[in-house]
Amino acid sequence: MYRNFGFKIIYQSEEKSRVGEITTPHGKIKTPAFIFCGTKASVKGISPQQLIENKTQIILSNTYHLFSYPGSEHIKNRGGLHKFLGWNGPMFTDSGGFQIFSLGHGSVADEIKGRRSGISTLSKINEEGAFFKSYWDGSEQLLTPEKSIKVQCDLGADLIVAFDECTPYHSDKKYTEKSMERSHRWEKRSLDEFLRRNDFTQALYGIVQGGIYADFRKRSAEFVSSHPFFATAIGGTLGSTKEQMYEVVEMAMNGLDISRPIHLLGIGGIADIFRGVRLGIDTFDCVHPTRIARHGGALVKAAFRDSTSREHINLKRSEYNEDDNPIETDCDCSTCKIFSRAYLHYLLKAKELLAIQAIAVHNIRFMNRLMEEIRDGIFEEKLDEVERKWR
Amino acid sequence: MYRNFGFKIIYQSEEKSRVGEITTPHGKIKTPAFIFCGTKASVKGISPQQLIENKTQIILSNTYHLFSYPGSEHIKNRGGLHKFLGWNGPMFTDSGGFQIFSLGHGSVADEIKGRRSGISTLSKINEEGAFFKSYWDGSEQLLTPEKSIKVQCDLGADLIVAFDECTPYHSDKKYTEKSMERSHRWEKRSLDEFLRRNDFTQALYGIVQGGIYADFRKRSAEFVSSHPFFATAIGGTLGSTKEQMYEVVEMAMNGLDISRPIHLLGIGGIADIFRGVRLGIDTFDCVHPTRIARHGGALVKAAFRDSTSREHINLKRSEYNEDDNPIETDCDCSTCKIFSRAYLHYLLKAKELLAIQAIAVHNIRFMNRLMEEIRDGIFEEKLDEVERKWR
Repeated sequence: MYRNFGFKIIYQSEEKSRVGEITTPHGKIKTPAFIFCGTKASVKGISPQQLIENKTQIILSNTYHLFSYPGSEHIKNRGGLHKFLGWNGPMFTDSGGFQIFSLGHGSVADEIKGRRSGISTLSKINEEGAFFKSYWDGSEQLLTPEKSIKVQCDLGADLIVAFDECTPYHSDKKYTEKSMERSHRWEKRSLDEFLRRNDFTQALYGIVQGGIYADFRKRSAEFVSSHPFFATAIGGTLGSTKEQMYEVVEMAMNGLDISRPIHLLGIGGIADIFRGVRLGIDTFDCVHPTRIARHGGALVKAAFRDSTSREHINLKRSEYNEDDNPIETDCDCSTCKIFSRAYLHYLLKAKELLAIQAIAVHNIRFMNRLMEEIRDGIFEEKLDEVERKWR
Repeated sequence: MYRNFGFKIIYQSEEKSRVGEITTPHGKIKTPAFIFCGTKASVKGISPQQLIENKTQIILSNTYHLFSYPGSEHIKNRGGLHKFLGWNGPMFTDSGGFQIFSLGHGSVADEIKGRRSGISTLSKINEEGAFFKSYWDGSEQLLTPEKSIKVQCDLGADLIVAFDECTPYHSDKKYTEKSMERSHRWEKRSLDEFLRRNDFTQALYGIVQGGIYADFRKRSAEFVSSHPFFATAIGGTLGSTKEQMYEVVEMAMNGLDISRPIHLLGIGGIADIFRGVRLGIDTFDCVHPTRIARHGGALVKAAFRDSTSREHINLKRSEYNEDDNPIETDCDCSTCKIFSRAYLHYLLKAKELLAIQAIAVHNIRFMNRLMEEIRDGIFEEKLDEVERKWR
């Protein structure tokens, strides 16, 4: 059923980390890999050419946003997402569930990290699906498992995801279980709809839910593994602290079929990626690298930081006003080859658009180099050394 | 005194148009050429790499803006403008005068086209120089001929311009003459200061003023031609209609030393460029191609227009919602190779940053192709044919 897709583990380390390769109709993805967010069918401020120049393997778009505007049928009529946005490599879309439950109630990061409570009042949920207000025009919309799959088929990304409820962090155990069980029924309906529509151009991910509860995470992992999904995504609340996040991911990994690719949704910090890789995660996605670029944040390796508490430098800070060095002296991106920190600082202060593009280019190349070195590190059994350099 | 600079006329047509080549320490410029505006040390939203990919020969920055922030000494300390903004080709800076007299009172285009009246209340002028308020922090500043040249030396562009007053359109003949005579004294002081500082890395343009009066334009042209400027810029009020503009340019051309390169300040429409070229103009500059890009305006040749009154299409218009064609089917820019009008329309509607970059890339390539074909057209004595295609 996934005849144009494949996943092979090229090297399994002595620990759980592994180097692999996902095959899609639009090319192969070497794993561990980072997926860049082109939320609204565009990686903000970056052209497909720049993505390729900086060795990007795969990007994603968000079903929620594109469903609201311009609508999936519009994109289907334009030839699908790949053609629409001019990206001929592998693409991923999510199910839309995550945004429905997190938008309007703080950022996605807030929700993952448990800083907000309650289910969005913007939506109501019943067995059929989730009602929400369109971010585009405020109209009331309903997304169901069948609709999410239909929309994702219209969009035509290579890798698509079953529809689930993203259970909020502050839910109690009882609600979390009820929500997880409904997500399983929704995932089953997603799978049925996918199979009905399957034309072998797309492959479906199941999602592990279960909140912060070990027994639920295991049960959810077993549910997903026992159904013919192509791959697995770990979703939902990952806890309120970094340590809890790693515990939750580890819980989810128990009971998972590790012969399938495993994606960790919405995580993209450097330290987090190393922890995830060591737990056996193959792919990550996060808005972080491109979002911080828009606020002057440039990702840097340990040697180039100005603080031990952050993985990036804030180029708006006055200390960079006369800093003639590039963001990183050892970076091969076009930004580091041409621009100084002083110039980028100036562009940010002068509110020149180029700042966003230039810093985003660096952050994209940074993430892709990080993943390259992680793959090499696993293969050569020297991941500790790679981690000391990057983390 | 301009030993690292040169200008040769490669082909003089039977009319006044000509193909030439300006030599600078940072490379040669084939003329007729278009100079793109990197007002605040950045062509808005476009990287130097993208400028090169789209065959850009030369860019300019504005002394007024950089004087206000970050200051010319800061840029000098960073290694000069070329190094600061990462552009290793020819550069041009203006004197700062134009902005002082036009900002705060409508756009530069308004001022040129005579749509606003009066001298900016933001500045006062006396024999010493012009007082103005910094756009950056509102502080009172004084720019004199000596200061303008000092600032332009700090910045280090190849081609720099004498300091003048940009006489407003609505000035009467008496004021225009008084202003022009003061501009001549300022230009002489600019030249003296330039000669005092000359290190053979820069070349100075004189400016022809004189408003809409033929006798003044001729007198000003003779003034400039009788002083050892490297080249000539035609500045100030060019009239209130297109026809008047061409008349004023023609007046200025009378009495000019045409063995020097001739620049027409602030003009960049397609029809205007053809008229200017036919009057013997070698270089043009205008914010137009990159400014309209920020509002969804894509320059197109006659065959691709949706209106006879405009030289661009507005991609925000709903008629492009389902238009799967590129901006121009015969354009070789990266935007036209990858993106449809429908996608660009969507990006504009969704307020995605990429729209600006993508349309600006097209407009830059468009202008550079236009100038390439104009040069070929002059050389092959078929400028009429080129004009029918582009205008």
